[in-house]
Amino acid sequence: MSEVYAVRRGRLRDRCSAAGSDAALVSLPANVRYLAGGAPPGAVLLLGVADQRDVLLCPRTPTGDPADGRRDGRPDDGLRLSVLPTATGDPAVAAADLLDPATARTLAVEEHHLTVARHRAIRSVAPRLLLADLGRTVEQQRTVKDEEEISQLRIAAEISDQALGELLESILVGRTERHLALELERRLVDHGADGPAFRTSVATGPNAGRPGHSPSDRRVEEGDFLSVRLGANYHGYRCEIGRTFVIGSSPADWQIDLYDLVFAAQRAGREALTPGTAYRDVDRAARQPLESAGYGEGLAARTGHGVGLEIDEDPQLAPAAMGKLDACVPVTVEPGVHLPGRGGVRIDDTLVVRPEADGGPELLTITTKELLAL
Amino acid sequence: MSEVYAVRRGRLRDRCSAAGSDAALVSLPANVRYLAGGAPPGAVLLLGVADQRDVLLCPRTPTGDPADGRRDGRPDDGLRLSVLPTATGDPAVAAADLLDPATARTLAVEEHHLTVARHRAIRSVAPRLLLADLGRTVEQQRTVKDEEEISQLRIAAEISDQALGELLESILVGRTERHLALELERRLVDHGADGPAFRTSVATGPNAGRPGHSPSDRRVEEGDFLSVRLGANYHGYRCEIGRTFVIGSSPADWQIDLYDLVFAAQRAGREALTPGTAYRDVDRAARQPLESAGYGEGLAARTGHGVGLEIDEDPQLAPAAMGKLDACVPVTVEPGVHLPGRGGVRIDDTLVVRPEADGGPELLTITTKELLAL
Repeated sequence: MSEVYAVRRGRLRDRCSAAGSDAALVSLPANVRYLAGGAPPGAVLLLGVADQRDVLLCPRTPTGDPADGRRDGRPDDGLRLSVLPTATGDPAVAAADLLDPATARTLAVEEHHLTVARHRAIRSVAPRLLLADLGRTVEQQRTVKDEEEISQLRIAAEISDQALGELLESILVGRTERHLALELERRLVDHGADGPAFRTSVATGPNAGRPGHSPSDRRVEEGDFLSVRLGANYHGYRCEIGRTFVIGSSPADWQIDLYDLVFAAQRAGREALTPGTAYRDVDRAARQPLESAGYGEGLAARTGHGVGLEIDEDPQLAPAAMGKLDACVPVTVEPGVHLPGRGGVRIDDTLVVRPEADGGPELLTITTKELLAL
Repeated sequence: MSEVYAVRRGRLRDRCSAAGSDAALVSLPANVRYLAGGAPPGAVLLLGVADQRDVLLCPRTPTGDPADGRRDGRPDDGLRLSVLPTATGDPAVAAADLLDPATARTLAVEEHHLTVARHRAIRSVAPRLLLADLGRTVEQQRTVKDEEEISQLRIAAEISDQALGELLESILVGRTERHLALELERRLVDHGADGPAFRTSVATGPNAGRPGHSPSDRRVEEGDFLSVRLGANYHGYRCEIGRTFVIGSSPADWQIDLYDLVFAAQRAGREALTPGTAYRDVDRAARQPLESAGYGEGLAARTGHGVGLEIDEDPQLAPAAMGKLDACVPVTVEPGVHLPGRGGVRIDDTLVVRPEADGGPELLTITTKELLAL
């Protein structure tokens, strides 16, 4: 595995070299992890461009143990490791201090992550250093996943399907959104997740279908729509699944109609996931059926997004997004409609973009999308 | 309640005015909440200094509802509320754009929270505006709590005691650290917490007593030390309790000796919590007994810290900390000793500093600190 991280760092080194930087300081946690293989909280990676010497700088934890027995990966053996002597020092500042002013004149930093105060502290320890912006270079590099990463996502999806499947077998009426959400998170861990990939959302009745709904004390009632959104974090990789069910023996006509509509929109979005398709065209495929049915106004700003070491990554599947899908990019497709006061439907899958020759998009979250009456 | 927030904003306005700022932009979430009474994720507060017009700027959530049914507080009614038109706009940039260049020349921002990229975006929409540093002014204002805040912390502590008490009544041998931690978090929510105040730590055997230990798959065994650290988040206020137990019928002599030592150190720290005592003297009181016993080397960098809307606030109880305790400051006292390969002891309470005339420090976390054999 160690080689993987060295290759990733090599690619970043090439980009930095092309941009004229002598070194790069990576501070965004998911980026550090991507390049270092695992890192304790607060660690930063100093990438030497000319001298090819990379250092992972870790703050000392209260125990003095930089790795702290974390399950989510150990730093790559090929890296030089530096543990700071006190709990108060900023590894980013220490990194700048490590650079030899004779050979390192330009340091690229992640301006979208470093605070103004840290940036200033770096400048004050290394006043002759020119600070450039690395921008979202590492995030862009992370967009296309290798097969090792995809297999972690596949396991994360399997765990999520298992947790959801068990919930469906239990009695739901009378339980609160909050308790169902906690139960799902416990089941994720039972099945081997390191934790939930994001805060689980359970929405009942009038709340159903609201994206980002925080579980409340409302209890599941007969006749409700119930929408659930969860995902496992497995070795740092995060996926997402969302389903909507009906509580009771038979759904009402408006529920069937709304479900069929969102299902068709989601299928259209999934089917648009081919290499070379513009992000905005995937969004349009999923959005169009909902707009045609008159639900254009209340729609979410996007119908999907990339996943990986963060639950919300590039690309954005949205009307104004620029760019085209590549193979091996995992994304969600998650259109939904929410009718204020009545509830709604949301269907959410994680898939990997694959060429048609390989069978088209690979569906990671395989729980059924039939409308189940529970 | 609305008056409380207006008073807080008034105090901040006075400080900004004294520092020569015409407006202040508060972006750190706990600070926004402290001043606005509640705010959706990503909201920022623009404090008008001269014109006394304060605006809470909220990013539009996917549902278009800025408050999103969150339990942790609604924005103060006295505030002007502004919801941004798109999901992509930065409320901090929109805030700078709201200012009238004729009257607002200097804007104080939180340089320890704003990223370099956001700071630059603010400068580009308002190039004539002088950006100053607000620093940790709001954090300092938050250090001393009012009785309303302390009563929220008291409830958070009560919930934490209840969750811990129930765990002690259950069978522990054979269960994993990970499961015990999840069970504690579920019980916190059962008793009314909005969630855990931080990630619950359960550490068994050789892991016991390690601060910040991440729960693993190790199972509780006879003869183990078991150390647990948890806390409830109640209406945004976070407390912390930590206890160490012995598994089995009777503790070994070394376990009793180590426990008695840490207990004495923790009591000395608690007894030092009087208004006017230097932070470092509280730390020394708790640290000294452990150092005298020969455990100086492996000790944590601090023996306690403030709590409130964040689980880790000022003051720091540490050897080099500057400042003195005030009344109505809630802090933790949490010394511990960890012996590599054998385990250790950690005892952690949340208390409020009170004058001796009022009975001395108020202990919020009241679970017994006798050495229980479970």
